[in-house]
Amino acid sequence: MSATDSLDETAIDDLALFARELVRAARDETLLRFAEGCRVEDKGGSAGFDPVTEADRAAEIAMRQLIGDRFPEHGVSGEELAEKRADGQFAWSLDPIDGTRSYMCGLPTWVTLIALLRDGVPMMGLIDAPRLGELYIGMPGQTFLETERSVLQLHTSGCSDLVDARLSTTDPYLFTGAAGDAFERLRSAARTARFGHDGYAYARLAAGTLDLVVECGLKPHDYHALIPVVRGAGGVVGDWLGETNFSAGNLIAAASPQLYEAAVAIMRDAS
Amino acid sequence: MSATDSLDETAIDDLALFARELVRAARDETLLRFAEGCRVEDKGGSAGFDPVTEADRAAEIAMRQLIGDRFPEHGVSGEELAEKRADGQFAWSLDPIDGTRSYMCGLPTWVTLIALLRDGVPMMGLIDAPRLGELYIGMPGQTFLETERSVLQLHTSGCSDLVDARLSTTDPYLFTGAAGDAFERLRSAARTARFGHDGYAYARLAAGTLDLVVECGLKPHDYHALIPVVRGAGGVVGDWLGETNFSAGNLIAAASPQLYEAAVAIMRDAS
Repeated sequence: MSATDSLDETAIDDLALFARELVRAARDETLLRFAEGCRVEDKGGSAGFDPVTEADRAAEIAMRQLIGDRFPEHGVSGEELAEKRADGQFAWSLDPIDGTRSYMCGLPTWVTLIALLRDGVPMMGLIDAPRLGELYIGMPGQTFLETERSVLQLHTSGCSDLVDARLSTTDPYLFTGAAGDAFERLRSAARTARFGHDGYAYARLAAGTLDLVVECGLKPHDYHALIPVVRGAGGVVGDWLGETNFSAGNLIAAASPQLYEAAVAIMRDAS
Repeated sequence: MSATDSLDETAIDDLALFARELVRAARDETLLRFAEGCRVEDKGGSAGFDPVTEADRAAEIAMRQLIGDRFPEHGVSGEELAEKRADGQFAWSLDPIDGTRSYMCGLPTWVTLIALLRDGVPMMGLIDAPRLGELYIGMPGQTFLETERSVLQLHTSGCSDLVDARLSTTDPYLFTGAAGDAFERLRSAARTARFGHDGYAYARLAAGTLDLVVECGLKPHDYHALIPVVRGAGGVVGDWLGETNFSAGNLIAAASPQLYEAAVAIMRDAS
């Protein structure tokens, strides 16, 4: 059964329009503080100005306010505040700033992650990169990149061979023990590896400029939004065992089924 | 002796204006191909479209053309083409795309590096981040960040303690043997570490959002431009021994002298 069964196109369009309102509300809270954080000279000390914590919290509050006003029956779970249970089939999953370390280091690829779940299944995902002015929005069968000047339908690269793959993970030092050994084999086999891009890496996989993303330790707010974005562009998202059980937080996203299987073959034993 | 002795301010301003012409000429070659590269679906195979090599070469040719027309007596050394010896004291050092792996992965922090050397010493450095619309320009005593909307004088964070430091290096896997062990000690001691930003990391150090950058294997075109940018913002750039001999390509850039010394204490034995 598709996640959009019995939802007509108008209803989906309305929800997508509303999701863009959430994006704008979050940008209002994150972008200015990012620029300010880049200007504050004295950043030392835990008592000082902490733009990332302030922005994270303010953006989640702003998004929750909009959801509560417009869809009081929808559930909301976010990274910062307590879960609001759904009174019906729809719930929002929010991560106001994914990539807090990039944010605090003045680096541009932090993102806001927003997913709409229907009966627990992500049916729409948004990856917004405010500093880059890029909004990625994924729905069943289609993913778009929206900027101020254009809307572009996205397709993964289709890369099917590990030796050609541009690999990414947020932090290679998170893989330890058997997972560390397996990731090292994957990294050595791939064409190149890039680190530190959090949710933005999945956006670039959907856009065809990265081919493979492997991560561990992800929380639901980290991965809910990524799934429709990658799948809508023709990519594959699954766990390290070739299944789709994400409860352990171990994800592989790939530009093609063949590349996904090649990565599973290496990561499987470390799961 | 200062590198600007006997050069009056007008002469320096003229050279800085001209350097901005080089930046624009390089952007014309790099930015469009970056956007195109992000759109090309079939990127496989060595016979295919290779935007980064094309852009690298075209940008260097464009900059050399401008320099040859305006200052035929100036030397030019670039990453892509043969060196042109100087007929006098001035020479330009060019790296059209520093961060080619970011460029080919559709990630935004690749930069163009331009340095003006006087008698072999970098007196002016430019780090241009075209995708981000940020130009960093460093001269003795001052570094500025220029965007479409503002010009901002930059100062490093002043961070003096490794435990507070936001560390960056382009590729942690480049450190092997004793250097690998030393970098691991540094990374474990620092507050956080970010990877993969090439010359842009030094720009963010000048801007105060990163505190420490440690690298090995840099070529002159990689480091010439960084030196005036970091020093003009009050930062320190030296080698792993606490000196300024960059011939081995081992650099440490730090937000303060104390932080530089703390990093030297760890990296020294691996030099």
